Amino acid sequence: MPSVREEALLARTAAPKLAIAGIEEKNQALLAMADALEAGCPDVLKANVLDMEAAAQNGMPQSMQDRLRLDEKRVAGMAQGIRQVAQLPDPIGKVESAWVRPNGLRIAKMRVPLGVIGMIYEARPNVTSDSAALCIKSGNAVVLRGGSEAIHSNRAIVETLRAALKKTALPEDAIVLLSDPSRQAAAEMMALHGIIDVLIPRGGAGLIRSVVEQARVPVIETGTGVCHTYVDAGADLDMALQVVLNAKMSRPSVCNAMETLLVDERVAEAFLPMAVQALHQAGCEVRGCTRTLALCPDCIAATEADWDCEYNDTILSIRVVDGLEGALSHIAQHSTRHSEAIITRDYGRAERFLNQVDAAAVYVNASTRFTDGGEFGFGAEIGISTQKLHARGPVGLEQLTTNKYVIRGDGQIR
Amino acid sequence: MPSVREEALLARTAAPKLAIAGIEEKNQALLAMADALEAGCPDVLKANVLDMEAAAQNGMPQSMQDRLRLDEKRVAGMAQGIRQVAQLPDPIGKVESAWVRPNGLRIAKMRVPLGVIGMIYEARPNVTSDSAALCIKSGNAVVLRGGSEAIHSNRAIVETLRAALKKTALPEDAIVLLSDPSRQAAAEMMALHGIIDVLIPRGGAGLIRSVVEQARVPVIETGTGVCHTYVDAGADLDMALQVVLNAKMSRPSVCNAMETLLVDERVAEAFLPMAVQALHQAGCEVRGCTRTLALCPDCIAATEADWDCEYNDTILSIRVVDGLEGALSHIAQHSTRHSEAIITRDYGRAERFLNQVDAAAVYVNASTRFTDGGEFGFGAEIGISTQKLHARGPVGLEQLTTNKYVIRGDGQIR
Repeated sequence: MPSVREEALLARTAAPKLAIAGIEEKNQALLAMADALEAGCPDVLKANVLDMEAAAQNGMPQSMQDRLRLDEKRVAGMAQGIRQVAQLPDPIGKVESAWVRPNGLRIAKMRVPLGVIGMIYEARPNVTSDSAALCIKSGNAVVLRGGSEAIHSNRAIVETLRAALKKTALPEDAIVLLSDPSRQAAAEMMALHGIIDVLIPRGGAGLIRSVVEQARVPVIETGTGVCHTYVDAGADLDMALQVVLNAKMSRPSVCNAMETLLVDERVAEAFLPMAVQALHQAGCEVRGCTRTLALCPDCIAATEADWDCEYNDTILSIRVVDGLEGALSHIAQHSTRHSEAIITRDYGRAERFLNQVDAAAVYVNASTRFTDGGEFGFGAEIGISTQKLHARGPVGLEQLTTNKYVIRGDGQIR
Repeated sequence: MPSVREEALLARTAAPKLAIAGIEEKNQALLAMADALEAGCPDVLKANVLDMEAAAQNGMPQSMQDRLRLDEKRVAGMAQGIRQVAQLPDPIGKVESAWVRPNGLRIAKMRVPLGVIGMIYEARPNVTSDSAALCIKSGNAVVLRGGSEAIHSNRAIVETLRAALKKTALPEDAIVLLSDPSRQAAAEMMALHGIIDVLIPRGGAGLIRSVVEQARVPVIETGTGVCHTYVDAGADLDMALQVVLNAKMSRPSVCNAMETLLVDERVAEAFLPMAVQALHQAGCEVRGCTRTLALCPDCIAATEADWDCEYNDTILSIRVVDGLEGALSHIAQHSTRHSEAIITRDYGRAERFLNQVDAAAVYVNASTRFTDGGEFGFGAEIGISTQKLHARGPVGLEQLTTNKYVIRGDGQIR
């Protein structure tokens, strides 16, 4: 078996060809990949059966088995996802600014690919095709390390995609799947400074923490969201109820779902009994602070640990706070700086919230669920960055690029 | 002595106040800092004498002692540097783009500070005031860890600057110097994920490598430059000679100085004897490949190690290459992706070089010495980033910021 380093070097060698590929070449490759994935669906499904059998034998939790399972519809969805990426504009070659210096040097700041992107993820096979498509469109080669639970599915998908690339102008090593899906292989990959330009972990908090702690390669940290919605005394309470229900219940398992509701003490009595009843009816468990429990005795008592918990589930913690100051102070202490919202009709407090809350996305009168590449209009995303360096918020095609300064002179010396 | 973590938390606590400070408050603080540094010059010089005495006792190399030494003129220069930063435009609050989604959500992408910046550097006390000024102007708090060789000077400078801040609207903890200048303290600082938002090492290759290898906090890697100049067959050889002399000899110790000259075999005979003679006359040691030696027998023979060496000195390696292809292939193999130049009159080869070379800055017909925040027109810089993530090229005020998405709605749910 080739080493992790040898496999990553294949992608490194392919990267310069990707970097100078034109938009037509890249789009033709993407469409060929999508077609091949649909045509190769039987092989992919056969491989997936092997993974599913192993998962059942190893007693994998049902929710994880759901994410691992492929069927014709899901494979068709993956192909469709690739075609959508083909339709997006090319992020490469765009000159963001250009200027002339007094000495006559003409400087242009141009978008170029990062080079080689490393993806470390878990048991969702669709991440394999999504990542490959986004990386190719942005002119990058990709090294994929999917979880061992999905190894047969991933191998079948990558073989199909590489076979498709072989018939195009792009090198098949634009997509490299590590042969070895072990943790040891992932650790080796994280040390490939100079070969892999950036690592993007996709998965649970444990995976992301381990990558941040171990990696020598720069990392884009994605995905942890302890998101708050603060219902201010100035709120339209009907709007607040709709936003709260949506932020918590429309898809509780994702990072932009609300985990904690903060309510101004001045509207707690008017808002909380109604809100808790609606949440209970929608199937949500509610854990409240003492003041919440006094108004809604049918809630469970929250503990200190609840304020820092990303449930990713139909559970919500509620805290009554002393107005905007109380909300800002709670958020400063417990936010993961992903997405935070205020519901209010008060102009001054809305502006203070937007100005003072430190998060990738700050909202007035809207659900935190909108923090998403598609909803922002980016077309596609590879995750939501919660770090401040390089990319903050949805990581779309543009965030998979860097810049190069192109400087034209006529003999200038310094 | 307070722990590294406790000291960094002081800066973390100050950061939100910095983030919402207006341009007037920040500029007034900077001017107060500059005045205080000039007024406090005697104290700073007294402290510097202690460092210089220790340096002499410990047998510090003369070149390092030169960088450590302060005098009235240098302190005045530091104060002047702070005043120049005060004159730059505020990078914070700028909306880079704003758009409305079909559902009516108004999204604005706004520049905000990174938060807390950690600087790890060596024995140059001017880095202390430079870094403090750039961080404050960009709305960030800064944790400084200067080398133990400069600890007395750094303490005196930081005490002066903090005393000045105390009389302004900004918190004095905007500038924190670690009490402990040890390597152990630096290592603790590199682990403060969540407290420090980004680390910027400034210094030699060893320091930077150790930060990249150890840090759990995101790093902006600065400063290693094995820069090439390729003299193409299409070059104006007089221009080439001027550019080569400037790129190597105008300041050999800096990262944007040329280390290797590549010469197209078709002009090697016409160019090299003249160039080597001029380089020798200017005091440069020349190490050549076999083909160079055949034309210029007075050169030293280069070894394989020379092609990857950042001399930072009056030494140049020269290689004759098989045209543009040979140059591109040598650069791809040996470049640190800092700054690369081609000298040519040929349009097609100039464009291919700009397009295919992967570096922070690529030049046609100019000296690589222009890769510099001041020369680019950024006003000031904290270093040259040679990584692709976040900032590539000169790190000025804008590169010390991140973005926040500010989203205004009227009850949108998903």
